[in-house]
Amino acid sequence: MSELIETGKAAKRASRAVALLTTEEKNRALYAIADALTEKAEAWLAANAEDLAEAEKSGMSESLLDRLRLTRERIEKIADGVRAAAELPDPVGETIREWSRPNGLVIIKRRVPLGVIAIIYEARPNVTVDAAALCLKSGNACILRGGREAIRSNICAVKIMREALAGVGVDENAVSLIEDTSRESARALMHLNDYVDVLIPRGGRGLIRSVVNEASVPVIRTGEGVCHVYVESEADISMASDILRNAKCSRPSVCNAAECLVLDKAIAEAFLNEAMGWMDDAHLELRGDSKICNILGTRAKEATEEDWDTEYGDLILAVKTVRGIDEAIEFISEHTTGHSEAIITENAGKAARFMNEIDAAAVYHNASTRFTDGGEFGFGAEIGISTQKLHARGPMGLEELTSWKYLIEGKGQVR
Amino acid sequence: MSELIETGKAAKRASRAVALLTTEEKNRALYAIADALTEKAEAWLAANAEDLAEAEKSGMSESLLDRLRLTRERIEKIADGVRAAAELPDPVGETIREWSRPNGLVIIKRRVPLGVIAIIYEARPNVTVDAAALCLKSGNACILRGGREAIRSNICAVKIMREALAGVGVDENAVSLIEDTSRESARALMHLNDYVDVLIPRGGRGLIRSVVNEASVPVIRTGEGVCHVYVESEADISMASDILRNAKCSRPSVCNAAECLVLDKAIAEAFLNEAMGWMDDAHLELRGDSKICNILGTRAKEATEEDWDTEYGDLILAVKTVRGIDEAIEFISEHTTGHSEAIITENAGKAARFMNEIDAAAVYHNASTRFTDGGEFGFGAEIGISTQKLHARGPMGLEELTSWKYLIEGKGQVR
Repeated sequence: MSELIETGKAAKRASRAVALLTTEEKNRALYAIADALTEKAEAWLAANAEDLAEAEKSGMSESLLDRLRLTRERIEKIADGVRAAAELPDPVGETIREWSRPNGLVIIKRRVPLGVIAIIYEARPNVTVDAAALCLKSGNACILRGGREAIRSNICAVKIMREALAGVGVDENAVSLIEDTSRESARALMHLNDYVDVLIPRGGRGLIRSVVNEASVPVIRTGEGVCHVYVESEADISMASDILRNAKCSRPSVCNAAECLVLDKAIAEAFLNEAMGWMDDAHLELRGDSKICNILGTRAKEATEEDWDTEYGDLILAVKTVRGIDEAIEFISEHTTGHSEAIITENAGKAARFMNEIDAAAVYHNASTRFTDGGEFGFGAEIGISTQKLHARGPMGLEELTSWKYLIEGKGQVR
Repeated sequence: MSELIETGKAAKRASRAVALLTTEEKNRALYAIADALTEKAEAWLAANAEDLAEAEKSGMSESLLDRLRLTRERIEKIADGVRAAAELPDPVGETIREWSRPNGLVIIKRRVPLGVIAIIYEARPNVTVDAAALCLKSGNACILRGGREAIRSNICAVKIMREALAGVGVDENAVSLIEDTSRESARALMHLNDYVDVLIPRGGRGLIRSVVNEASVPVIRTGEGVCHVYVESEADISMASDILRNAKCSRPSVCNAAECLVLDKAIAEAFLNEAMGWMDDAHLELRGDSKICNILGTRAKEATEEDWDTEYGDLILAVKTVRGIDEAIEFISEHTTGHSEAIITENAGKAARFMNEIDAAAVYHNASTRFTDGGEFGFGAEIGISTQKLHARGPMGLEELTSWKYLIEGKGQVR
């Protein structure tokens, strides 16, 4: 793994230089990258075609093939994303706070980049460019470790980006790719404590858990969402139905999609009457507790204990009935992954209780959990959604890719 | 380790209740704890006497015995520390930011407690109370895992604190102690991901490294300090000598003490002339590069490569000469632990370069590194000094023991 250590060293060194770039210099580098990606689209498409051919041969499903696939339009969109990152405000250098001490010391708390950000992700070549752009804009160097399936596409994209960086006088080691896609290379990256300031895994639950369990470098856990929609007894039934439909069906595979409906017994039948139309249309599989199975008969399967903790990522919905808000809060607290939770009610007091007492990154009153997203929050971009409480929680924009330092100005003070 | 899981579950449940306490309720609990500690001082002293007797038998050094020892005065001081925590502003509940989106959603970013904070520490019984008080004030539950040497003192202190909590109607599981002081219990705590939101190790380098390497729960790395004082060619020599003396000798065992003097060659002899008096008085051992050994002869030993990365915690100083600020920044960047670094110079431009380019929690111009401390920064208290960039950097006060959540208020919005 001596090669990886060299990569780490070079990234650390580059991070010191990138941290000192002005906003204009970083933006110039981002525009250069965007232009290079479109100008060299042929090469990138050719590399991607090889990845696709190999993936097809190995029997990859069409939906995964589609995530791997680049087209000229997609490349344009990716390049536009890089330009959009350039347009975002630069978080680096902000004076977060400045104060003086009785002994005359002046202390400035200044926002600085994190340093070296490592990202382990799966087979989506757009992540390679998105992540590099956000890291660069926030003054960080990045070490990327993508999946085997996209390796040719990733090598090509990183080559284009590094050439573009060098072309504008920025240390090309600000963006590095680990070309070795073995488990060993990922594992070694998780222990590169001397050079990596934070590791962000992006992908499925298996990837994230293995990183959390294995890594000794600081990790931000992202994107596990067993999200609940709680339809309280005083809910506007029609609004509740619309919100649940959106939260469950608009994009079932994403982490902010709802997995479990928590339904007050007092309105269970009324709500199901309202919602059954779209549930049937969507061929939504229902897994309910005994009360739900009593109401719905064979339309619902009986839920097992495991269902309450499952992120289906699919057109399946667990349905739990409760008597009152205490039971709802208790149930959700027991099963939340700390991502996004919603209450639908017209009762302001109950809404306030839910918002206060539920411990999750995002808590909603009368809105869909699908809004937990950097773009929807107005952050302009996101590198992931943190489901831990350390460092960053919820959608992570540029500010979440920074740390701070204290600058202390003295006149000879000693303690 | 099923007992530990029960402790974790109980702490998690308590953390939900503690997070909802008002400032007044938390303060009442803190005053109750402070009063109980002084009222029951006899019991605590008796438990401590047993720890001391055992430690003496096992041959503990007098300086370590002194850290373990409680006296009535020390207990008064510890209790006053708890009362001081009550007087600090409550960070919880603050609206960090509030904004609306074009679709009408109102988003509030609110400061909330981290949840359950685990602390692994060594043989200082005061940490047991200090840490519990700061966690409680910031709305967190804590799980404490102290060292074997102080176990009887810790059991007694936690019993007193839990009784005091119960007496004012607060869930006593807000403060828990792991009484099993085996390595296995510490290791199990490091993997209690379902219940622990952050683990803070407090102690020597060995403890901190083993936690960083082993833990799968989020960790904040604290207190490793190879701190440099860089005496630049345009330094006020007398000021530089005073600052170095304070940084090195005022308390050599602490993490913000200087370990290495970086000396511009242009002023090396002048500086050493100025400083040699107090260096001799302090019996300060010097380990220098060849230039230093040439100047000082047998007064300095020759430094090895290892010296540049050693936190002596003792009256030993490594001395490196450099030619100009570039070489100084390069050398310090190579060997910094990211704790505290100082430049002494009358040249504002060089000072600014140093402050910008050195990547450490605290960078000083013309002041001693010894000021890196929650109290000295005006935070009122500190739970440790973070040397990582994730979550918190530098002295960690109450605000660093919090996270945030997003509260989103809608009127039926879907995406």
